[in-house]
Amino acid sequence: MSEPDLPTFDDIRAAQARIVGHVHRTPVLTSRLLNQHAGVHIAFKAENLQRAGAFKARGATNAVLSLDTATAAAGVATHSSGNHGAALALAAADRDIAAHIVMPSNAPDVKKAAVAAYGAHIIECEPTLEAREATLVEVVARTGAHVVHPYDDARVIAGQGTVGLEILEQVAEVDVVVVPVGGGGLLGGVALAVKTLRPEVEVVAIEPAGADDAFRSFGLGRRVLQSAPNTIADGLLTSLGVRNFALIQQYVDTIITVDDATIVEAMRLQWTRLKTVVEPSGAVTFAGLLEYPERFRGRRVAAVISGGNLDIDKLPW
Amino acid sequence: MSEPDLPTFDDIRAAQARIVGHVHRTPVLTSRLLNQHAGVHIAFKAENLQRAGAFKARGATNAVLSLDTATAAAGVATHSSGNHGAALALAAADRDIAAHIVMPSNAPDVKKAAVAAYGAHIIECEPTLEAREATLVEVVARTGAHVVHPYDDARVIAGQGTVGLEILEQVAEVDVVVVPVGGGGLLGGVALAVKTLRPEVEVVAIEPAGADDAFRSFGLGRRVLQSAPNTIADGLLTSLGVRNFALIQQYVDTIITVDDATIVEAMRLQWTRLKTVVEPSGAVTFAGLLEYPERFRGRRVAAVISGGNLDIDKLPW
Repeated sequence: MSEPDLPTFDDIRAAQARIVGHVHRTPVLTSRLLNQHAGVHIAFKAENLQRAGAFKARGATNAVLSLDTATAAAGVATHSSGNHGAALALAAADRDIAAHIVMPSNAPDVKKAAVAAYGAHIIECEPTLEAREATLVEVVARTGAHVVHPYDDARVIAGQGTVGLEILEQVAEVDVVVVPVGGGGLLGGVALAVKTLRPEVEVVAIEPAGADDAFRSFGLGRRVLQSAPNTIADGLLTSLGVRNFALIQQYVDTIITVDDATIVEAMRLQWTRLKTVVEPSGAVTFAGLLEYPERFRGRRVAAVISGGNLDIDKLPW
Repeated sequence: MSEPDLPTFDDIRAAQARIVGHVHRTPVLTSRLLNQHAGVHIAFKAENLQRAGAFKARGATNAVLSLDTATAAAGVATHSSGNHGAALALAAADRDIAAHIVMPSNAPDVKKAAVAAYGAHIIECEPTLEAREATLVEVVARTGAHVVHPYDDARVIAGQGTVGLEILEQVAEVDVVVVPVGGGGLLGGVALAVKTLRPEVEVVAIEPAGADDAFRSFGLGRRVLQSAPNTIADGLLTSLGVRNFALIQQYVDTIITVDDATIVEAMRLQWTRLKTVVEPSGAVTFAGLLEYPERFRGRRVAAVISGGNLDIDKLPW
């Protein structure tokens, strides 16, 4: 088996140049009250304010803009129950090409509405991984569309890595960068960017205890798959990708797990104090700071808020 | 009866210089999706991201920093069930003087907690205007504290007017400035600032239909008091102040009322699309744009989001 193609630091720089003007340079948010509460100085990189409401717009846009004209003409496709589907739909709309998004029948209405709002074709299927993959194969056979994987893709990882470049540009002094991990697209890209430019900055990943395959894989030194995840952080249910695990082994210092109760507490504090709408998966980084204060005390932390898409009629309190 | 002292434009400029570094220069938020939804180009001035979660920090800080040393030494006092109490507590803490906040016994716990977090003395009383005023008189007699009214005060109005200066500095092209109105501190100050610098810019006030004393006063040409207000916008229940009405008559172009249902719709859209936590009173400006689209279509609007303090356990949906 040949090695998968990994993104390089130069790919992240190239992605930054490619996606500028298509995605937001998101702001960094701070709160004296939250700093006091956590005993840490925190710069929140607010990717919940990204287009389509999550960092996923970066990777999807980089992938779509990387396609040659002939490939792009046939459109793009993926299966997704969440933010990647909306991000790919947005990126395709920006390039004026078709997007085919396979969505499980139990995907939340708000997610379907977001994908539909960007003009993508939605293909519903049974809510199993097998059905999603089989339906995607069918769609590709029918349309010739190019598949963009949500995280195990060098172009996607490079796009997400631009979050790391922006953190180092926007936050003058930083000791630790804290990133959520699900499939590892954001974590792999950010770790590669940060460690290349500033090897002395620690990169810490936070994962829900109920979906801790990255934590276990990192500890065992081999990739183990997630089975039966159980966490409120619905964006972090997936297993690590192959490329993502390779980057994480090389560039990440530690992976820490947090309980769902802390994730909900973190969300509430970010809503009420930062006044910003954070989804559960986006709150895991702040949850890590709350659950392990002694680990971070007195250090200057940059923590990524990965997204803000959720059903506000079904809040966890 | 002598005329009350009205703030001048120079007072707003002086307030801006006085409060810089003590309060935030809040960002302007935009959303292509909300622009499409409302058919208008909107720059949201995000005072929900202000210190203590509302524009009130500006006026309270200007008032507290305007006091001479001897007066300040005795502390400040007010009665408030809402954002002004927290703002005055914050301003007093910043100057390291005492704050005495009279609060009705039915004030929400989150509001009491916010005031307490800034180290102010809370004096509870019966939830009637008479009890609040009588208790405040008592507190002042006992402590010698200086009373800072929430809106009918030239220093407070001048402080709130700095929102208008910042809008003209931050939003390159603007045809209309849209402001919520309750007591009229924010509206009076912003209208004075905007009309002095840019008389051609329209200033439109939005008021909940269930607390429409400003709308009626403006139409009648004389100040009528609010009785039995009934609206979800709990920051806009009060009657217009004397100074505020004088400024509004001179500088405001129109007052428009909106229904509570539209306020809730506006809040939901701001939460889900802007990803920003807006309280009902803060959403009335966007509600005005949604309820009267033909009034604003094609124009460049700056709309103030006045605050983001609410109990997230009691959401109106």
